Formats: sequence, C-alpha cells, structure tokens
Amino acid sequence: MRALIKHHAGEGLQLDRDRAMPELGPRDVLIRVTKAGICGTDRHIWEWDDWAAGRIPVGIVTGHEFVGVIERVGSAATRFQPGLRVSAEGHITAGVDYNSRTGNAHIARDTKIIGVDRDGCFAEYLVMPEENVWPIHKDIPDRFAAVMDPLGNAVHTVMEAGVSAKSVLISGVGIIGLMAVTVARAAGASRIYCTDINPPRLALAKRLGASEAFDAREGSGWIEQVRRETRGEGVDVLLEMSGASAGLESGFQALRNGGRAALLGLLAKSPTFDFNKHIIFKGCHVLGINGRRMFDTWYQMEELLLSGRLELDQIVTHEFGLDEYERAFETMISGEGIKVLMNING
Amino acid sequence: MRALIKHHAGEGLQLDRDRAMPELGPRDVLIRVTKAGICGTDRHIWEWDDWAAGRIPVGIVTGHEFVGVIERVGSAATRFQPGLRVSAEGHITAGVDYNSRTGNAHIARDTKIIGVDRDGCFAEYLVMPEENVWPIHKDIPDRFAAVMDPLGNAVHTVMEAGVSAKSVLISGVGIIGLMAVTVARAAGASRIYCTDINPPRLALAKRLGASEAFDAREGSGWIEQVRRETRGEGVDVLLEMSGASAGLESGFQALRNGGRAALLGLLAKSPTFDFNKHIIFKGCHVLGINGRRMFDTWYQMEELLLSGRLELDQIVTHEFGLDEYERAFETMISGEGIKVLMNING
Amino acid sequence: MRALIKHHAGEGLQLDRDRAMPELGPRDVLIRVTKAGICGTDRHIWEWDDWAAGRIPVGIVTGHEFVGVIERVGSAATRFQPGLRVSAEGHITAGVDYNSRTGNAHIARDTKIIGVDRDGCFAEYLVMPEENVWPIHKDIPDRFAAVMDPLGNAVHTVMEAGVSAKSVLISGVGIIGLMAVTVARAAGASRIYCTDINPPRLALAKRLGASEAFDAREGSGWIEQVRRETRGEGVDVLLEMSGASAGLESGFQALRNGGRAALLGLLAKSPTFDFNKHIIFKGCHVLGINGRRMFDTWYQMEELLLSGRLELDQIVTHEFGLDEYERAFETMISGEGIKVLMNING
Amino acid sequence: MRALIKHHAGEGLQLDRDRAMPELGPRDVLIRVTKAGICGTDRHIWEWDDWAAGRIPVGIVTGHEFVGVIERVGSAATRFQPGLRVSAEGHITAGVDYNSRTGNAHIARDTKIIGVDRDGCFAEYLVMPEENVWPIHKDIPDRFAAVMDPLGNAVHTVMEAGVSAKSVLISGVGIIGLMAVTVARAAGASRIYCTDINPPRLALAKRLGASEAFDAREGSGWIEQVRRETRGEGVDVLLEMSGASAGLESGFQALRNGGRAALLGLLAKSPTFDFNKHIIFKGCHVLGINGRRMFDTWYQMEELLLSGRLELDQIVTHEFGLDEYERAFETMISGEGIKVLMNING
Repeated sequence: MRALIKHHAGEGLQLDRDRAMPELGPRDVLIRVTKAGICGTDRHIWEWDDWAAGRIPVGIVTGHEFVGVIERVGSAATRFQPGLRVSAEGHITAGVDYNSRTGNAHIARDTKIIGVDRDGCFAEYLVMPEENVWPIHKDIPDRFAAVMDPLGNAVHTVMEAGVSAKSVLISGVGIIGLMAVTVARAAGASRIYCTDINPPRLALAKRLGASEAFDAREGSGWIEQVRRETRGEGVDVLLEMSGASAGLESGFQALRNGGRAALLGLLAKSPTFDFNKHIIFKGCHVLGINGRRMFDTWYQMEELLLSGRLELDQIVTHEFGLDEYERAFETMISGEGIKVLMNING
Repeated sequence: MRALIKHHAGEGLQLDRDRAMPELGPRDVLIRVTKAGICGTDRHIWEWDDWAAGRIPVGIVTGHEFVGVIERVGSAATRFQPGLRVSAEGHITAGVDYNSRTGNAHIARDTKIIGVDRDGCFAEYLVMPEENVWPIHKDIPDRFAAVMDPLGNAVHTVMEAGVSAKSVLISGVGIIGLMAVTVARAAGASRIYCTDINPPRLALAKRLGASEAFDAREGSGWIEQVRRETRGEGVDVLLEMSGASAGLESGFQALRNGGRAALLGLLAKSPTFDFNKHIIFKGCHVLGINGRRMFDTWYQMEELLLSGRLELDQIVTHEFGLDEYERAFETMISGEGIKVLMNING
Repeated sequence: MRALIKHHAGEGLQLDRDRAMPELGPRDVLIRVTKAGICGTDRHIWEWDDWAAGRIPVGIVTGHEFVGVIERVGSAATRFQPGLRVSAEGHITAGVDYNSRTGNAHIARDTKIIGVDRDGCFAEYLVMPEENVWPIHKDIPDRFAAVMDPLGNAVHTVMEAGVSAKSVLISGVGIIGLMAVTVARAAGASRIYCTDINPPRLALAKRLGASEAFDAREGSGWIEQVRRETRGEGVDVLLEMSGASAGLESGFQALRNGGRAALLGLLAKSPTFDFNKHIIFKGCHVLGINGRRMFDTWYQMEELLLSGRLELDQIVTHEFGLDEYERAFETMISGEGIKVLMNING
Repeated sequence: MRALIKHHAGEGLQLDRDRAMPELGPRDVLIRVTKAGICGTDRHIWEWDDWAAGRIPVGIVTGHEFVGVIERVGSAATRFQPGLRVSAEGHITAGVDYNSRTGNAHIARDTKIIGVDRDGCFAEYLVMPEENVWPIHKDIPDRFAAVMDPLGNAVHTVMEAGVSAKSVLISGVGIIGLMAVTVARAAGASRIYCTDINPPRLALAKRLGASEAFDAREGSGWIEQVRRETRGEGVDVLLEMSGASAGLESGFQALRNGGRAALLGLLAKSPTFDFNKHIIFKGCHVLGINGRRMFDTWYQMEELLLSGRLELDQIVTHEFGLDEYERAFETMISGEGIKVLMNING
C-alpha cells in the first residue's frame, strides 16, 4: 500500500508506494482510509524538532486524524462490521490502569498514539483496536469526520470548562482555537473574546462568532475592555490555547475571581507563574486538558455536528491527494491553509 | 397610590386608587413600579381557587413580576441609590437559615413571596429589602426586565439541568416552557423536543427554536421518534413544565438511562409513579426546581439577555395600562396573550 | 463440575455434580471460584416469586457474588494472567451503547447479569469477559472479596450521594443498608440515622456506627427528633434502601430542603408520591442507583477496604460448604445470618 | 477598653488599656470577646515584614480569630440577639459584587479583613456586620470556637478537594496542615500522607491520623513509596499547605493523572512551573483556596466538630491572658506552642 513514512531522522516525510499492509490482531479492525487531516503535531514531525527527535520512532507511518471504512475485522472482534464508515480515537491503552477503567482513558499511564508511537493514518490502510473505533453518523460528511481528533480537543476543552451562558476568553486562535470559537458559540457561550498575534486568524474568529478579537501585540488595553464589559470582574472562563507564556499570563489577568481556566496549549518553556495572584487569591479552578474523553467528547462532537451550529467550512480549507503531500504540508505550514486534508482512497 | 388589591375572598381583583404608600424600613428601598407582568399565579389568585383561598391574605396588593426605579432608600440601606432602574427577587427570607446562608435562599424555610404572602408590585410603589434588589443593565429594555421572575424560572430549570451540547425534551410549553425553549437554545442545547396539547403554543415553540413539537393528544408515537433520533437512547435532559401526570410519565419514558430530569411544573394531584423503572433502573438524576437561585440565576439571565440570543419578543405579547387590568387579565386567561404586561407608571 | 442450578420453574435449587465446564471465549477468562455470597436476589430465585418466574431462564447456574482465581485465559485475552486472585463485575455489556462508552456501563441498555440472565458463580468454575475482571489486592481477605458485589451497591449509593461531613439517614438496614452504615461512617458522614422494623438489625446498625437507629413501627416521632438535631432542617442525605413506600415517604419527610436522596431499594409497588412537597418545593436532588460504577465504585471499595475502617466482620456472619447449600439458604432466609457465604473450592 | 494595637511601623504590638469602644452601626453587632487565637498572619504583623508593612494600617487593633458573646445589636440589626455566643467570618464585603451575590463572598473583590484592614479581635470588644456573625452550637467549647477561622481554612481546602474514600497528600503540616490531617481523616480520607521539614510536627501528624509522615529533607524517595502504595498512580488529592516551591513541585510529582490539587499555601516567590508535565498532560484539576466559604464551610465545621471526630486538643496547645500577650506571641513564634489562645474576657 501507499503510506507516508518518517523515513529518516531529519526533515520531511517520504511516500512509500509499497509499504506492507498492517497486521490485523484478533481484536482489531482494518480500516481503509478515505481522508486524513494534517495536524500541528505532523508539522513538528515533518520539521523534526527536538520534541519529534526525542519521541518519534523512525520508520513509522505518520498521521492521526482520519475517516475511513472498515475493510475487515479480527477473529475476536465483535463490535463493528465491515463496510461501516468510521473514525477512531488515536490514544490506545491496555485498559488496565486506574484511568482507563474509570472513563478517563485519555490520561491513562500507558497511552500509545497512532502516527506518533505506532503506525498512523497517512496510508491506504490502518489497523485499530475495536475499542477505539468511532462510527460516523450518516449526516456527517467525510471532510468533517476526518478532523474529529482536533475538533475533539476543542470540544473537550470547551465542555470541561463549561461555557453555557458564560463569557469566555480564548487565548490563541490557531486551528484548535478557531474550532473552539465555533464550538463555544454552539455550546451556549454568551460572549467570546479572542486574542492572537495573527490578524487573518483574528478576523476569521470574528466571522465564526467571537464578539471581539484582540491583537495581543497591541498592548494589554484589551484586558481593561474585557473587564469593563464583564461587570468589572473579568471573564467567567479562560481557554488557554496559545501555548505562550504571555497568553497564559494575560489570560489569567482577564479571568474573574472564581473563574475556570482550561489549559490545552503546551508551553514551549516552563514559565515563572504567580500562583498567589492568579489562582489562590482568586479562588480559580484550573483544568489540564489533554486528548479527548473516551467517549463523552465524541458523543458531544456528534451532537454539535448534527445540530448544524458548527461552522467548520471556513476552517477545513484545503484538500489534496496523498501524492501531493508536499504541497499539502506546504499549504499548512505557510499558514495559507488552516486545516488541510489529504484524500487517500476515493 | 393606585394598587390592585385582592379585596375579598372570591373571584377578581379591585383597583384601589387611594392605597396608603408602603412603609419603608431602614434596610428597604422604595421602588416606583414601571411595568409589571401577569403570572399564572396571579390568575389563580384572580380565580380564587383552592390554593389561593388557602394561602393568600385578603387585602394584599398582588403581583410579583416587575421593573421600576428606586425612589428612596431606608436609613440603613447602603447598596443602591435612588434613580437606579431595578427589578427584584420576590422571595424574601430572614437570612438566618441553612439555605439562606449557603447561596440557596430560593429554598429557605421561611420564604415570604411578594404578591402572595405580602404586598406585591401591581401598584405604583413597592417596598423591597435591599438584599433582594437587582439592578437592570442599561441594554435590557423594560418589557424584558419586567419578566425576569418567570424568565428566571426557565433559566433556573435549564441551567440546573445543563443543556450544553445535549438533547432536551421540554414537557409543556406554557409561558415558562416557551421561555425555556429560547433559553435552552441560547444555552447550547443541540436539539429541543417539545410536547403540549395546545397547537398554537407548539407552533410558537418551533419558531423559537424547537426541532420538533409534538401534540401529546396524538398518542405516544413521538416517544419512539425521539428515541430513534437519539441513538435509541432517549433524550439527555427532561424539563418537566407541564405539571401534568401524563407529561411527567411520558417525559421519563423519553429520557435516556443516566439522563437528568428537572421538575418545575407543580402537579395538581400526586401521581402513582414507577420509581423502579423511571429512576432506579435507569440511574437518572431528578432535580426539584423552585424559584430562582439568588443570584446565580439572575446573572445567567443577564448574560443571556445581553447575548442577543433570547427571542422574547414573541412571548411578551401585550401591554395594558393599570386601569385596564380587567382586559389585561382577560387577555392572559383566554390564551390570546402569552405574557401580558401592565404599564403602571410612565 | 459441581454447580447450583435453577433446575425447574418452582421453589429451590439443585446441586448438579456433573455440570459441563463453561466454554471459554477468546476474550474471556476462566475463574475457579473460591467463595460465593448469597444475595437477596438469589433468595427470590430460590423462592421463585413473580419477578424470578418472569426473568430467570430455567437451567442456569445461579449466584453472582464471588471471589476466585483465574485458571485459564482466552486466546485473545491480554489483561490478566492465570493465578491471579479476582472477583468480577457481574453486569456484562457489549460495550457499544452510549452508557457503556462513557464510563456508565452499569446502566447500559443491553446488560446481562451473571446468575440471572446467564450462568453464575455458584459453581466450581465460571467464565467472565476479561473486561469485567477485578484483581483483588493482596491485603483483602477472601471473605470480604467475595461480597464486593453487594458492598459495591452500598459504596455506589453512599459515594454518589456524597456523605463527607454530612448528616445521613439510611432508610432500611438489610444487608446492604448495614453495609452502607459502615461505609458511610468510613467515608466521612458526620452523623448517621437509621430506620428499620427489625430490632436486631437496628442494634447492629448502632454497633457499626449509627448515631441513632429508629424502629419505624413506633410512629414518626423520630422525624421530629432528627429535625431537631439538624438545626430544624432535616438530614443532608437520604439513602433509601428499604424498598418500602413508607420508608421512601418518611425518608423524604426527614430530608432537608436542598438535600440529596439516593434511591437503591426497589419498590414492590409503585407508590403515590407527592412530587410538589418532597422534590419540587424542597429543591431536592434524587439519584437512581443501580449496580456499581465500572470501575470507580470498585476502586472506592478497594480504598475503603484497605483503610481498615470498614467493619464487615459483623456483617459476613456465616460460611458453609457448597454441598450444604440448603442450610446456607435457610440461614440467610431465616434472618439468622446476615451475609452468608458458600466455600466452593478450597 | 483594652486592645492590642499595631502602634508603630516596626516590630511588636502594644497593649492599649484605654482604647475607645468601637462604634456600632445600625446593621452591626457589638461582641464582647472571650478568647482569641494567634495566627501566622498576626506573627507577620508583629514582625512587620514586607507584606505587613505594605498592607497593615498603623494604629489598628489586630487579631481575627475569636469567640465571644453579643453585647448589643444595631438599630436595624434583626438576625441575632444579645447574649448569643458567637464567632464571625472576618472577611467583610459590601455584598454587591458578583461573588458576594452568588455564595462566593470569600473571593469578593472588595473584601476587608478584620485585624488586617480594620480593627480586629485582640480587644475586649469588637464590632461586626450581622451578616458575618456565626452562632456557636452549645456543644462546641470556647477553645475550639475561637479557632474556627483557621480551622475553616483547613476544612475549606479539604472539602473543596474532596477526600472521601481517597488517598491524600498534605504538603506542609504547620497549624493549618495539622488541622487538615484531622479534618481529612474525619471527612473520610482513606489514607493520608504528609510531608514537612519539622520532625515534631510530622510526629504529631501521625498521631492525628496520617498513615505516613515524610521528612522532605531526606530526599524524594517518599514519592516512589507513595506511588507504590497507590497502584503506581500517585495520590488522588494534593493539599498544598507548605507555601514552598519545593512542596508544590514534589506535591504535583506525587499526584496521579486526573488528580485534584487544592492550593492554600501562599508562595513567598513565584516559582518556575512545568504546566505541561504537572497539569496538562496529567489532566489535573487545580483549585485555589482562600478564606472560608460563607457559610458552607462554617456549617461543615459545625458538623465535623459535633461529630466528635476532630482531634483539636493536640493542636490548641496554650492559653494566656491578654496581658501576657508577649509570652503568647513568643510561645507561638518559637514553635513551642502550635495554636496559642489569649483569654480576653472571662
């Protein structure tokens, strides 16, 4: 089969046209991949930064966002049948630790991630444990089903924070931050403020439903405006998606006493942080967010997608064939595209 | 001053044009009433049914939904100033019992309600303890500020149940049920089903955002439809607002295992209820809802009203002068109007 | 193998000394049963009441509370190894419905229960899906490990209600109610009131940590006492374990406004219930409780058992050999024993 | 009256024997102080460190932990009567901001603290707004009623984190940490680990119910032991009460994925903190804790005190007369005493 491989310890990926088919275990399903999305993580793997060099086994098939169709099921697999259109949760656990057994497999201790720790979905075929498979509702189109992994990060963050009838600040509107704007709006946020340093993304955030979108490079005057518009208190909820120390810091400044902060963005460097001022005196709740809940987040996504209230059309901007993977990555890395898909089969 | 009085133990109310001004205690504020809304409770008082005859002291000023302006404040009142546009929470407590002191004054043991247990707002002036006063945001018009009491019932029910990214069944779309439709939609419900036996109200529910509105007189086929559209499970959330045994029963039938039911509608008669089937085997959560949380619900209302996502224009249908109170009540009782206001001053 | 069979549609069980060994599927484990507990459900099956006649397939092996040792694992089973001492969650689901996939398998729509819907544990060997297996910590003795199923009902009820620093009323102190007394005390209840109509059980409840134990046949004066001792409010938490309409009714009378009621006891007959008074005006939360959470409840049990704070010695009163099953059932049915075990292997 | 005054901007306090009686406002009560406790904050004020120099107005009466008897009530005060034995919540707000009106006055924006921002309780008489008064149950002795302020910090932290049937790490066993040990045990913690650098306090923690008490100066081997004893996961709950960067850091290391950390200890210096590792990847919840909830925490304290399960006798170690205030402070500052009281009237 064709597959996009991290072929050597350096920049780029390579298209292998003769990769061996993955082996199907008794509890696995074999999925014929239809479309796959390119994630910021894939960009790190392409660029081979320190994180990638330290984590990614050379030789694996990359990619973890996809939709496809079940081709075959293992001898002891009972849950799903060939022909079913599916995506899957890419975090795989053995199912025996505390978190796996209490509905929190997304923070299990032994998680392996497809396209990171083992073969992923930038390939014609992919094998997944049946526990991880997610059937796609007939009314959800492939181009949205292909991005349920990052959409799930946004939904997980928004739903864990709780935004219904609340004012929300989204710090950082990259791909997931933009998804969070439309998700927060659909989930009932009363007002959505955004910050970033990228004007086109800020403009898009407004089109997706943000009340205000501030360029963080223009000083911290926006914090005063937010506070003025929130009874002098600050926002009810902070969604930290910038992964920048400055975004974290200003986000907490704009958060009201007793507010909730959900942190998704990974920080490049551990910041110096004033716990007294930002968390203890304020009586704030801070939630670390990681992956997607299995499978609460997936059900919430399905509800939101079927509600017709998510505006993903402006976020899923480009599609390429697998053979055009270099243009696909270039479009994503340059910022010309937001979410870029590759069509793999059909 | 002019005031609408429950003048004798029988049907009707009487307009007293020379009622003595209410007495202002040291911690009270005197409010000049601008507009007041007619509630189903006022109808019971007008019609003098068994409940009214058992509860209402003859001679009181009726009414509990209003907006007005502070005219004067008591000698020891410190929180608000004359000239402020306000509404107020009509449940008054001494502030010393467990629930009053833990943010749950809406279920205090010693609650007195204006227009029910003591003088109310169908009058030119009204006295309220300053703790109960709610300042009205400048962007909220009087005709909506006047109905924050019943809107608060709807918001309390919706927010306590939690509807964000969830499917919701609203059993009963009277005034508060209709408000709950637009509130649930604004608060992020993914799908809203309604039942009632009043076709115009069902039609209005759809215009306000309900996905489906079922006439309960046409059998229980709708339950199967709802289940089919919810993965065979049933809805995530039931908001019981019919106060009818049949509405309660069918509502629980349509609720999924592990769902949440918020009960607001008071039942005319205690039903026979299958706890095993509806609550225990299903592992459901049932919440009794009463009044409005002080003041979480009021802040949530403010957020929702300012979000521009509540469609109250189709619910607040009529306004009359205080002198036209008989036509106002007639319009409300006949069902011609939904929420009917009386303009009292200005 | 030897196995206790529901051999015909009538009273009693029969010991089959030559039952075929159960078949081991690829994802199952075969468990050699060490000890098994007799449940109230087993009594219903023995007595062949209406419920049993309507539900139990004649010919099955009965029993669902046990501890044993893994003898063999299926070809595709990966989680546990032969030789491990285990119990198991007796509710088996296919793992594909909403509740199974969101950490709430205890209320899945397709649950099959061992010893009720399929072969159970009153036998030398038992087959279980590996997902259901629970490894027993080395410091937990077999006689307690054998009763984790009913103990789990008690823990589930107590923990879902939340008793930490709260006053609790346990309505009904049968086996699970007695377990709930010691569990509630270990879990931090500040005061525990009990009611029942069985004086020796009430006396035992006091020895296990109840502050007061009331004989419900002596009138409802106890409700006034409880209210007096709880600031005039009533208890914070009601655990309904009597399954009697009178217990439900008086339990709600003794519950404070805003209190939480967890209902476990199945009612023999649907009661007439005043929702207005007991739930809506009071703003109460009512939780239906069923089975055990998979596997939060099991982890909580492990914590509680290892804490040394559960007093189960007075609850697990008798042990018999499997061949003495008639005496075992008689001891349990007569009330002479509380929790009665059968030693099956070793 | 006699009162202990911060008489000048430097070390020490001075006993003024002729301080004017405080002025009683219409909504205030005048309290005759019986006993008062010395807090770490009072030590800062005594020692006049940077925090004190920046915050404390010279000339105020110090002290904020006390029990007394109402002597007189203001003209518009209605809740309590002279002769009542009381303590009071020392955080005073105007009652108009978001948090004050939603049951979270402990994090109001305009809080003034007695003995810090205005006159406190190291005096024969003290004036408090009646909203802040807490009646003392007859079964709670004065020496415990006098320390409900710091006990409330411990209870607030423990109850917000939730410890029922959970393993808990208390990082730092100063006065409040020690109180947290006995509170966590009474509130249902299954296991309590402590760390500190003070061996006598660690020994006392064990006597109060800690399973293990580790000297943090002896390396981080204890983290491995804790993890081993908690299924390899780490503790369910961290209560950070050390206020030390090292305590914060090692506390998070010992916390399991998905655990809850409640932070009470104020850090002398903002630490560099790895959010990715400690919060985001782990999916942890972090709660900032401040003051006491009004008045949930006070009710919880009352429940716990009346349960007879709090062991405060070993924590409240010394009592002196007000005239002996220098010895009282010396005993507290030297560490010879833990909680030191001053008897003021009677």
